[in-house]
Amino acid sequence: MQIDVLPSAGSPRIPYLEDRLVIVIDVLRATSTIVTALANGCQAIIPVLTSEEALETRLTLPGSLLGGERDSLIIEGFDLGNSPFDYVPEKVGGRKVILTTTNGTRAIRDSIAAPMIWMASFLNMQSIVLAVLREFENNDRLQGIVVFCAGTEERFDLPDILCAGMFIDALGPSVLLNDLGEAARMLYQSSEDHLVEKIRKSVHGKKLISLGFEQDLIYCSTPNVLPIVPVVHDGEIVWLTGEENYFS
Amino acid sequence: MQIDVLPSAGSPRIPYLEDRLVIVIDVLRATSTIVTALANGCQAIIPVLTSEEALETRLTLPGSLLGGERDSLIIEGFDLGNSPFDYVPEKVGGRKVILTTTNGTRAIRDSIAAPMIWMASFLNMQSIVLAVLREFENNDRLQGIVVFCAGTEERFDLPDILCAGMFIDALGPSVLLNDLGEAARMLYQSSEDHLVEKIRKSVHGKKLISLGFEQDLIYCSTPNVLPIVPVVHDGEIVWLTGEENYFS
Repeated sequence: MQIDVLPSAGSPRIPYLEDRLVIVIDVLRATSTIVTALANGCQAIIPVLTSEEALETRLTLPGSLLGGERDSLIIEGFDLGNSPFDYVPEKVGGRKVILTTTNGTRAIRDSIAAPMIWMASFLNMQSIVLAVLREFENNDRLQGIVVFCAGTEERFDLPDILCAGMFIDALGPSVLLNDLGEAARMLYQSSEDHLVEKIRKSVHGKKLISLGFEQDLIYCSTPNVLPIVPVVHDGEIVWLTGEENYFS
Repeated sequence: MQIDVLPSAGSPRIPYLEDRLVIVIDVLRATSTIVTALANGCQAIIPVLTSEEALETRLTLPGSLLGGERDSLIIEGFDLGNSPFDYVPEKVGGRKVILTTTNGTRAIRDSIAAPMIWMASFLNMQSIVLAVLREFENNDRLQGIVVFCAGTEERFDLPDILCAGMFIDALGPSVLLNDLGEAARMLYQSSEDHLVEKIRKSVHGKKLISLGFEQDLIYCSTPNVLPIVPVVHDGEIVWLTGEENYFS
């Protein structure tokens, strides 16, 4: 199985995605927050690029919530920020959330040519790996995986790459990797016993801590606690049910 | 000292370079070849972006040679390819070479806003590190270093990142790094005893081997054998003499 890792939203040379499963990773914090929201009963998340698009989308979806950040902080007038702790059952249960973040929602939009787009984080890694293995066993039209790290403002982000490395490591040694995939695996294997420490020292990690989001960072660095595979379906991010047919 | 590593030519978000020393790295093979050419008596290397520009430049420089590659192979009608073994004293001694390569010369051009642009490879790493330490001791206008990895066709290239990691590792633990710099250091530290093996398995390494350039790869992976610091000066790459005043 070929796995190519991309370093950030806005990456030059996005590969051919039409026969690939794309795994989007934005550990701090978009995909961690999306996984948490769905686990807490959120009906769907609608990723949009701008605040204006979020406000317009809400006009068509009465009862939905607005979520997102700019420069790591909640957008003025929005209901929720980008902290997973904002997405509690009392707020998001049974409702849709329109979400815009600096890097994560952009990586999702950059992946739009792919037939399958899933969201990974440390929180749901085990479920992602099991779902990928099942999908490749049953779907011979998929030719490989692109792991699309959201990055931080178009730059390489160590937390995302470590998470990509955990994913690749879990698939075993026989996978074929681009150089960033090989690097991700090496970085994960040399860090797996002190992931939180590495993520704390990353540029984005230090910024979140300085803004008072240390608990977010610790939570987002916790592997395998939520059994959720979020997938993009008709422009919305929902639970994977296994009934989808993406090539129809 | 702040050190930021960029993954490839064409990187989005090139940082402010006006007060930075830029170290360009293209292990396979442009900067390895440039170092070798200068060590073998080449008078200067003139980096250009296209074959057409190379031909035009030669009109103004009688006696100069044309060097470069496209898709790893020598350009038709050129005197030299991109193999360091082409740049022997009998050919390049006392002459100028006009050079165009896919990634390396582009990274040099992308760095043009910087007052100082140096070329590193494994071959000359020790000399680069010593020259950097001396420069920062004597030059208080320099605010940091940008390590510009050329990459492969706008993609992350493991040989370049390992070389960047060797550079950072040699400067000691007190440097301040962006996430890719931290990753480069970690990757180097986990690979330093088997560098050639890692470089062999990289995408670019495998391609060079398949084209018959295995000896190039082994040579380019050899640390600290050439005492040369190539610098860009008035559009030409020459030996660092220590007499330059880049801020005048």
